[in-house]
Amino acid sequence: MQARMTIEDIDKEFFFHPFTHVREHERVGPLTIVEGHGSTLTDTRGRAYLDAMAGLWCVNIGYGNAEMAETLRDQTERLAYYHTFASMGNEPVARLAQRLIAMAPGSMSKVFFGNSGSDANDTQVKLVWYYNNVLGRPEKKKIISRDRGYHGVTVMSGSLCGLPNMHAGFDLPLPMVHFVRAPHRLWEAEPGQSEEEFVQGLADELERLILAEGPDTVAAFIAEPVQAAGGVIVPPKSYFPAIQEVLRKYDVLLIADEVVCGFGRLGQNFGSEVFGMTPDLITVAKGITSAYIPLSACLVSESVWDVIASGSDKYGVFSHGYTYSAHPLAAAAAMTNLDIIERDGLIPQAKARGERLAERLRAEFGDHPLVGEVRGDGLLGAVEFVRSTDPLTAFDPALKVAPAVVRRSRELGVISRALPAADTIAFSPPFVVTEAEIDEMAAVARRALDDVAAELRLLP
Amino acid sequence: MQARMTIEDIDKEFFFHPFTHVREHERVGPLTIVEGHGSTLTDTRGRAYLDAMAGLWCVNIGYGNAEMAETLRDQTERLAYYHTFASMGNEPVARLAQRLIAMAPGSMSKVFFGNSGSDANDTQVKLVWYYNNVLGRPEKKKIISRDRGYHGVTVMSGSLCGLPNMHAGFDLPLPMVHFVRAPHRLWEAEPGQSEEEFVQGLADELERLILAEGPDTVAAFIAEPVQAAGGVIVPPKSYFPAIQEVLRKYDVLLIADEVVCGFGRLGQNFGSEVFGMTPDLITVAKGITSAYIPLSACLVSESVWDVIASGSDKYGVFSHGYTYSAHPLAAAAAMTNLDIIERDGLIPQAKARGERLAERLRAEFGDHPLVGEVRGDGLLGAVEFVRSTDPLTAFDPALKVAPAVVRRSRELGVISRALPAADTIAFSPPFVVTEAEIDEMAAVARRALDDVAAELRLLP
Repeated sequence: MQARMTIEDIDKEFFFHPFTHVREHERVGPLTIVEGHGSTLTDTRGRAYLDAMAGLWCVNIGYGNAEMAETLRDQTERLAYYHTFASMGNEPVARLAQRLIAMAPGSMSKVFFGNSGSDANDTQVKLVWYYNNVLGRPEKKKIISRDRGYHGVTVMSGSLCGLPNMHAGFDLPLPMVHFVRAPHRLWEAEPGQSEEEFVQGLADELERLILAEGPDTVAAFIAEPVQAAGGVIVPPKSYFPAIQEVLRKYDVLLIADEVVCGFGRLGQNFGSEVFGMTPDLITVAKGITSAYIPLSACLVSESVWDVIASGSDKYGVFSHGYTYSAHPLAAAAAMTNLDIIERDGLIPQAKARGERLAERLRAEFGDHPLVGEVRGDGLLGAVEFVRSTDPLTAFDPALKVAPAVVRRSRELGVISRALPAADTIAFSPPFVVTEAEIDEMAAVARRALDDVAAELRLLP
Repeated sequence: MQARMTIEDIDKEFFFHPFTHVREHERVGPLTIVEGHGSTLTDTRGRAYLDAMAGLWCVNIGYGNAEMAETLRDQTERLAYYHTFASMGNEPVARLAQRLIAMAPGSMSKVFFGNSGSDANDTQVKLVWYYNNVLGRPEKKKIISRDRGYHGVTVMSGSLCGLPNMHAGFDLPLPMVHFVRAPHRLWEAEPGQSEEEFVQGLADELERLILAEGPDTVAAFIAEPVQAAGGVIVPPKSYFPAIQEVLRKYDVLLIADEVVCGFGRLGQNFGSEVFGMTPDLITVAKGITSAYIPLSACLVSESVWDVIASGSDKYGVFSHGYTYSAHPLAAAAAMTNLDIIERDGLIPQAKARGERLAERLRAEFGDHPLVGEVRGDGLLGAVEFVRSTDPLTAFDPALKVAPAVVRRSRELGVISRALPAADTIAFSPPFVVTEAEIDEMAAVARRALDDVAAELRLLP
């Protein structure tokens, strides 16, 4: 019997998909991707799609890279895996740690490795708690995150997310996590408010929360430079400087979640550089290997490291670490990925293609009556749909406008992504995307919106 | 300057090691492994070591496997990565899910993928909470684990561990996790107690805890078939049947953590089969890819899946999943790993080699005056050191006898592991280990113990 099952039947029968509507999947089944090259994916029926999302904001060097394939084979023959517990080491991981510290902004000192952005942010919380325990501040443990933030899906990193759909059903967030508003002018600013007033209001809100909770109980603030899954929310340039003034005043650490922005997505190595952030801890994943193999890392600043190192006297062995922490094959893949990015000038290229993307999205959507905002930074773009721009009025979420546009777009050969927190579609293509592919992505999205608008009769 | 740094200098300067004593590492530096073949590792100075631990209980097919290298290259050229959110699929992962369900004990139905045992156990807790929320039992959320259990290091999975060294400094466990004793006769049984009485005592303890907390508040019990990192604790054969009777009585789910035991370590596919467990959820990692690439999975039984699937109506999209969930490269590696294990008969071989290991450990340590117990199951063995066997008296932990034996053993060319919860050294070699290598591992460990005993004057 099973010999006759199609791959789609097998998927439906045995595979529990992440972030999927189970009943819908039972009805419709999967779209099975078999191959990728550059920015193009191919499904089981030989149909090609332009991937405007680089997987999930991660395949920065593009699909099917032959140098990555050689590295993975060669390092596997030499040493795919050995652990790094109890002072054991391997060469690729030592060199990668050195390289990350050299690339990173501020005075970063040490690198702890994991397997995903989720586990890295989970680790960051453990590092922050350990740090305050070593300092003899057992009460200073609360974490402040932001509405629309996306930081992972473990019980702890899921708690850090400011997306209600990720909490419902899972009893999250844990009680030590608190939230402030996102720097999303479109919806959060009051009418007529200047950028300066808007930013001051957000900084004041943070300060009020810290004072209400008690500064001695607040340990860290976590933030993506640009909130990606929460809607591609680009903060005003004055936002992080104002926020950091508050954090410094109350001795609250800053964790920069660079999982999407790190390694060039915004046209510089790290998003922190673009937005004037001086983090104490940096989380990276995705772009570190362009997703060819799971890898994440926590970068720890000199001042935090000094405290953690002195914890040896109090706690002995630092009893945290994953079996696959500092996996040599993953580290070798990261080195080749970073070599390719550097040698081929992919970060300046991402910047240039990002400008093209912004221009094309503005051209296609800038004056569309159903578009509330076209926004982005670097090679990261988004279009937010609204019922009306004046007065600004959102669609009924039940209409699912953005998912309909994404579905139609896929039928037309381009994969973009609908973001859950807003009627927004996102674009985050591989850095190797061509100008013609960028133009195609924007044009198809526009055609998809017009088709959906006609089908759902969204326009008068 | 940096050009002249040795790899050991670079490691010390930039790399934050997992489960390592920071100050000791600053003094001593790393042992850098550069190559592996079969059961043998080689360091930067060309020194060879027999790896009696298969990394961290995981490199079951041995190091440097050429077929794995080919698979990793070929799948990378085709499709290293694409996500599986929103009903996207790929072929290796569908086939792997089908294969895992076919191999698994009981009536398992669906497979959810992650990157590590830690994230998989964290996911299991979220699955259990979601399940009870869908069933309208919002209070039924507590998890019972066991002393000496090892289940990972995220905030949640670290909470599930019954090892105090993993909690100190990190504010763990979270308050919804409770503990019962380990089935460790050597220390937990009362003098003269029969196996039956000992097991009944453990089952009674579990029942008392459930009744004290309130059965309506207890959601799941998590257990490794053999507790590995906690001391290679092999339960009496009647243990799990007695425990499961209690769990069924109070409608408490059983999560089997098969991260170490799964895929043949105990001479059968799963440890659950060896110990009469009928789990509702199974966690696997390590042996699924022999650690060549990070991968973990949660196997979900039919009855739990039915509830989760019906959660769509209440919660919509199942909003949990990792970027690297169901990574096609990892799934392809797992398929080749399982092909090799099956084709080469590595599970029966593990069983046979395990018998040899048990025999050699008994021969070397059985009547040693400093050995409290030689134990194990399948290709998993341990020797526990004590000051005196009659009356049974432990060493002062400050003496660090097991770490000293492991250090001396490494000088003699064999890598074993000291387990934190007891003065115990563990053996968990690759399935491809030869009989001669087994003999060498046991003989070297004996010589190391005698050397340490002489050095520390442990014998009268």
